[in-house]
Amino acid sequence: MIRRIGHYTLGFEEMPAIIGYGSVAGKKESEGPLKNYFDKLIYDSYAGQDSWEKAESIFQEEAFTIALQKSQISNEEINFIFAGDLLNQCISSSFSMRGFDIPYLGQYGACSTMAQGLIMASVMVESGAAQNAACVTSSHFCSAERQYRFPLEYGGQRTPTSQWTVTGSGSCILSNAKKGPCVARASVGSIVDYGVNDVNNMGAAMAPAAAQTLMRYFEDTATTPNDYDAIFTGDLGKLGSDLLYEILSKEKIYISDKHHDCGLMIYNGEKQDVHCGGSGCGCSASVLCSYILNNMEKGTFNNIIFMATGALMSPTTCFQGESIPGIAHAVNIKMR
Amino acid sequence: MIRRIGHYTLGFEEMPAIIGYGSVAGKKESEGPLKNYFDKLIYDSYAGQDSWEKAESIFQEEAFTIALQKSQISNEEINFIFAGDLLNQCISSSFSMRGFDIPYLGQYGACSTMAQGLIMASVMVESGAAQNAACVTSSHFCSAERQYRFPLEYGGQRTPTSQWTVTGSGSCILSNAKKGPCVARASVGSIVDYGVNDVNNMGAAMAPAAAQTLMRYFEDTATTPNDYDAIFTGDLGKLGSDLLYEILSKEKIYISDKHHDCGLMIYNGEKQDVHCGGSGCGCSASVLCSYILNNMEKGTFNNIIFMATGALMSPTTCFQGESIPGIAHAVNIKMR
Repeated sequence: MIRRIGHYTLGFEEMPAIIGYGSVAGKKESEGPLKNYFDKLIYDSYAGQDSWEKAESIFQEEAFTIALQKSQISNEEINFIFAGDLLNQCISSSFSMRGFDIPYLGQYGACSTMAQGLIMASVMVESGAAQNAACVTSSHFCSAERQYRFPLEYGGQRTPTSQWTVTGSGSCILSNAKKGPCVARASVGSIVDYGVNDVNNMGAAMAPAAAQTLMRYFEDTATTPNDYDAIFTGDLGKLGSDLLYEILSKEKIYISDKHHDCGLMIYNGEKQDVHCGGSGCGCSASVLCSYILNNMEKGTFNNIIFMATGALMSPTTCFQGESIPGIAHAVNIKMR
Repeated sequence: MIRRIGHYTLGFEEMPAIIGYGSVAGKKESEGPLKNYFDKLIYDSYAGQDSWEKAESIFQEEAFTIALQKSQISNEEINFIFAGDLLNQCISSSFSMRGFDIPYLGQYGACSTMAQGLIMASVMVESGAAQNAACVTSSHFCSAERQYRFPLEYGGQRTPTSQWTVTGSGSCILSNAKKGPCVARASVGSIVDYGVNDVNNMGAAMAPAAAQTLMRYFEDTATTPNDYDAIFTGDLGKLGSDLLYEILSKEKIYISDKHHDCGLMIYNGEKQDVHCGGSGCGCSASVLCSYILNNMEKGTFNNIIFMATGALMSPTTCFQGESIPGIAHAVNIKMR
């Protein structure tokens, strides 16, 4: 049964289990500290296709296929898949899932998509609407840069506050099995807009939303950061993480000793020249489906918060002078 | 409780009720046969804003506000909103919902978004995850044309198979009230791709998905078209509707005497020069939230199928030579 906790949080009494998960990452990610955690590395940015957009679909397809294999079920047993990405019309997702014949629900939450998909799949399983439900998301540095900023051929200079879009994908499969990492609680965030309008400073645009969702989650559940082994955000980067600490400290909430940002974990910041860290739907998704869930199964973490954050911006709205709204969804994952 | 019926269909035992709904339409729509059904008409294509994209947000905001007023609840009482549209990064939705502080879940299903949102909101209410959940979607002829096809200033000639994107929006609010139009069953569709690659022939791209979802729904529920007062699709248009009849007739399913397509209902086809009919997320949404639900409350229809269809295409994929995948979700709405 799903129970409402406070005003913003859902409690999943049966705790849907993540029975399989898969992660795929690209060349730059293979040179970072998490290289040994990814299930598959694809060194060719085209993944054998003739465009980066098609390559991104391959990343998703692979991540989902690995998740299926690990969960030892077939695509026919998946009742719903929640998929989304950063590309216009979410094409990586619709094209990657075209061949699977799985009831499909396209999601758009910018870089918060992994948490959104995880929450929706949990709702489907917990409510009995699904025996098994899946989620998948991806991003690709090359397809994202040319869509959101400049074509790579232009060779633009990156600003110090910019983040590097991760080439990667992550996928989870949920069922009502009573074992392994399980989704216990979740808070869906509202849109928060503090008026940031610098397309090269996503961290600042997302930090207020991250703070709001986390504060509401702690209030609703009457818990504090001390109740968790770790709090993972994705992808605030360096600047966004600092802003998050600053906003939370005004409310006397201190998370810095528990906090890890997926955007800071996936690259070796100084050596890899990524400025403020990684970003993109594929960042928090691939870190969740590799380092985080692996370490939960190993016993390093038993009770965590995974909060993916999204900047709901578009080149169109930025050119029209609009600011960048942020959003963040928090998911409490526990080992059973 | 949510019950699984067959392989693809959900049964909502408590039947979440549509307690409020709102529709807003533009000038061309105000000249069509449904003009008296819309809650609000906005004649200025800019809706007082300085861009069509911003105008589209206003349409959504208005439709949602009307739905709230009719349901006599406040935005604080809405636990989740499912919103989506056709624009890149779903900006009409994220900007229209920015001021409401409602937990937000962005959806992308192209023109199938209204059915998708309705299903997700129903799942949230039926499962107890929400007391009240909402969905909203929109489209705008001018913002869609310049994004998907040509800038209007170019004055391009439209092909005979093309459809006219509706300028409009629709929004529903669902709760567990035991009255009025209620969501009884729903089938979420899979992606179907028959290889159509003509961006000016959406009807042909969507018809196979519509046929598949409808056949699966009838099989799962052991019902036939005769069990329903009407079957509404949106937006197959003239050509897509004919193709749907043709595919279904091979399976000995005949729906033509029960079938109405929102794309054909909203305009006076011959006089209004819309070729194959209306399209866009706002088409089926505004027809559902005006003519269809009004006529259910009046007693004209008691038991209907609302099936919104989407073409999951993108200018990017079309330029890269890809075909256009289709999707369709069916919702069975009954009067209580």
